Amino acid sequence: MTASLGLYGLGVMGSALALNILEKGFALHVGNRTASKVPPFVQAAGPLGARATGHDSLAAMAAAMAPPRAIILMVDAGPAVDTAIEALLPHLSPGDTIVDCGNADFHDTRRRAAALEAQGLIFMGVGVSGGEEGARHGPAIMAGGRPESWAHLAPVFEAIAATYEGQPCAALMGPDGAGHFVKTVHNGIEYADMQLIAEVYGLLRHGQGKAPAEIGALFGQWDQGRLKSYLVEITAAVLSAVDPATGLPLVDVILDQAGQKGTGRWTVVEALALGQSASAIEAAVGARGWSAEKATREVGEQILGTERKPLELSETELEGALLAGRIVAYAQGFRILQAASETYGWGLDQARVSETWRAGCIIRSALLGDIAAAFRGEMPHGQLILAPAFAADLRASLPSLRRVVAAAVLGGHPVPALSAALAFADTFSQGRGTTDLIQGQRDYFGRHGFVRLDTGAVHQHGPWAVTIVDKVADPKAQ
Amino acid sequence: MTASLGLYGLGVMGSALALNILEKGFALHVGNRTASKVPPFVQAAGPLGARATGHDSLAAMAAAMAPPRAIILMVDAGPAVDTAIEALLPHLSPGDTIVDCGNADFHDTRRRAAALEAQGLIFMGVGVSGGEEGARHGPAIMAGGRPESWAHLAPVFEAIAATYEGQPCAALMGPDGAGHFVKTVHNGIEYADMQLIAEVYGLLRHGQGKAPAEIGALFGQWDQGRLKSYLVEITAAVLSAVDPATGLPLVDVILDQAGQKGTGRWTVVEALALGQSASAIEAAVGARGWSAEKATREVGEQILGTERKPLELSETELEGALLAGRIVAYAQGFRILQAASETYGWGLDQARVSETWRAGCIIRSALLGDIAAAFRGEMPHGQLILAPAFAADLRASLPSLRRVVAAAVLGGHPVPALSAALAFADTFSQGRGTTDLIQGQRDYFGRHGFVRLDTGAVHQHGPWAVTIVDKVADPKAQ
Repeated sequence: MTASLGLYGLGVMGSALALNILEKGFALHVGNRTASKVPPFVQAAGPLGARATGHDSLAAMAAAMAPPRAIILMVDAGPAVDTAIEALLPHLSPGDTIVDCGNADFHDTRRRAAALEAQGLIFMGVGVSGGEEGARHGPAIMAGGRPESWAHLAPVFEAIAATYEGQPCAALMGPDGAGHFVKTVHNGIEYADMQLIAEVYGLLRHGQGKAPAEIGALFGQWDQGRLKSYLVEITAAVLSAVDPATGLPLVDVILDQAGQKGTGRWTVVEALALGQSASAIEAAVGARGWSAEKATREVGEQILGTERKPLELSETELEGALLAGRIVAYAQGFRILQAASETYGWGLDQARVSETWRAGCIIRSALLGDIAAAFRGEMPHGQLILAPAFAADLRASLPSLRRVVAAAVLGGHPVPALSAALAFADTFSQGRGTTDLIQGQRDYFGRHGFVRLDTGAVHQHGPWAVTIVDKVADPKAQ
Repeated sequence: MTASLGLYGLGVMGSALALNILEKGFALHVGNRTASKVPPFVQAAGPLGARATGHDSLAAMAAAMAPPRAIILMVDAGPAVDTAIEALLPHLSPGDTIVDCGNADFHDTRRRAAALEAQGLIFMGVGVSGGEEGARHGPAIMAGGRPESWAHLAPVFEAIAATYEGQPCAALMGPDGAGHFVKTVHNGIEYADMQLIAEVYGLLRHGQGKAPAEIGALFGQWDQGRLKSYLVEITAAVLSAVDPATGLPLVDVILDQAGQKGTGRWTVVEALALGQSASAIEAAVGARGWSAEKATREVGEQILGTERKPLELSETELEGALLAGRIVAYAQGFRILQAASETYGWGLDQARVSETWRAGCIIRSALLGDIAAAFRGEMPHGQLILAPAFAADLRASLPSLRRVVAAAVLGGHPVPALSAALAFADTFSQGRGTTDLIQGQRDYFGRHGFVRLDTGAVHQHGPWAVTIVDKVADPKAQ
């Protein structure tokens, strides 16, 4: 890497990433929209600050950098990225590189890559996962762009990335928007996994009357088994935390309204656009949306009067249910990646994606090594739940998921993600479903046609023995 | 109405709508992209054809029409509408009106309305529901545009619309994209309702071994009660139909792969964009998507080896479950309408929407009168399931939905829409949910912050007693 390196945007993630880069020995130009935050950043960096050069603006930063430049943007996804690019353009030379390390919508990344390449510049969209601590000490890095551009930047990104058994968790996923798409789906899976965990927590808490610390200890145990993962690990920590002000479990003083940025939602939307459904992820996104309507839920509790009933479920059943739910969430995510790769011609290597997620990122888990192995082995129709190892897992864990969902719905405990996961597994367990009736209805009222199972012939309208045409305009029939 | 009237696009829906207009006594210019289909249409119209004037092209049609012109487009949603508008533009005069009666994405309608108004033309986006027979004999009509433009067109649309107790089911919903948005949500509800019906059919068929005709008769019975609706009525007809070629129930010779156009998907996407979740509709869209992967499902049946077990459920329980599911599907649809109305400033009258859907359209049902009444009465937080009449319905029917979902999931029957509906009702029955844990996780790994329940103070990171920062880059911790 002979290019001079810059990073613009010193928020939580940007500061952490900048310190990580400095720590690995790279010189770094830094800037921030609120320029007054730059000197304090450099000062707080301590000895690392000696390798940092602060600037008042993007223009000043670019002017001070020797070409070829590589400038990392760590600004909010959306218009702020375009604004930064516009500000940079007059000060860049052909062959310079802009790297968007935010959570961009991959459609934007594709657009920006095309626009900047037309001007002789290089653009890369790079997803960075791991939260603040990951960015600081080793995130998972999912890059999108040209191989030759990645070759220039890889030494930096591989140096700052998390490692798994000595291998950096940083890889080029494919061209243009591939890196940001993989990051989006990563976040989608993260949404689903968090919701699945929250649902199981709810059953233990409100269905079995366990205290948060007790539940935290159970998650800690689960983290030693098949569920081993960062999210289960931190769930144990979060549930064990005590509020210093009140002495209560900290989770009990937190308002139950979960925020969200765009990536979970985007995953669901892109799944639909690709003819897929990420139903477990949708359930998680929906649950966060509904959580915002707390006042409505409080009135709803009064009006609908549903009480959450005690649940007789073993810890083993709950563990199995969470495992089955997690496998489906991963399966839905990887299915979307496959569909996108086919649609956009990315040539995604799903095994490589799994490996990149094994360390540094929020969804890192013991399952990911098995997923990588599954993608390198037999996988009927590219469907993860049908790969031998995961089919075996599901045969073992689906009965638990059934019992947990059944008990929860009978007891008035909402389990949208667990039940969505189960519906997915059950749908793909049946060669013949019930959409034959739906095709019949569609043809009946709209002549949409249907295919005959026996001959493969396409019927256009009928033969329907019964017609109720005359009733259509008859108000008595309504 | 003194404008001359034209209709372009003589496909299934366009032909039916044109015949309807001619039958009501209006003179009509007609055209079609494949011009050779125009003379046969006029001829087949019989005596009605005397009021029709066929044209070879849009240009010829516009040239032959006296201004002010009103030209209805009945072409495929998407680029075909823009193509038709482009072709028309050189031949129109200020004050002419283009009416898009297809299933447009309302974003496109907003864009087109703005562009055409800037040129002194009038654009209306009008949703038409009722399938072919509805279009021919009386559809429900949901218009979007300016009141003065609607005033000119209303005599035509009110004449051809379905009527309910003497009132035409045609109304101006609001400006620009409001009509197409209402139509989109109508279709989304239609998707959910069809999926709910198909799930209940599956439980009766595969869980209770009933024959299609027997199940059809049961739906026929249900159509006399609270479930009274067009979709339940035609389900009875579809399930009673016999295939002349084989003598088998017709539903049994239909391939179980359901097609879809865009509107169900759009509803889900717009719901998410508005911070809502139309989870029952998403389940329906997803089920259609998955149905396309029949080969995968067939292999899945072999590999996962789930068999659908017999179900002990009463007809009353199944009826109650379907009613509860339907109420939630409507509630989710109307909630999206409310959110869109607030976002786009449409001032939608939800009671009027319900009334417009009471006849002619695919989701017309006995519930819609009650829904209109609910919107005119007390409705806490604009949430339909909390309006007194529907809360009472749910208190009565949710226990059935619980038992049906529990039995189905234990027995291996996929019920994605029924379980999504139940999760929605249960979520809004609890003042305190479990997203407190999710906020704790988010703050733990990403400093996203949380609000304290007791003081309302916003915490930014912590106080977390435990930190696992050191483990982040340690592969042993993965």
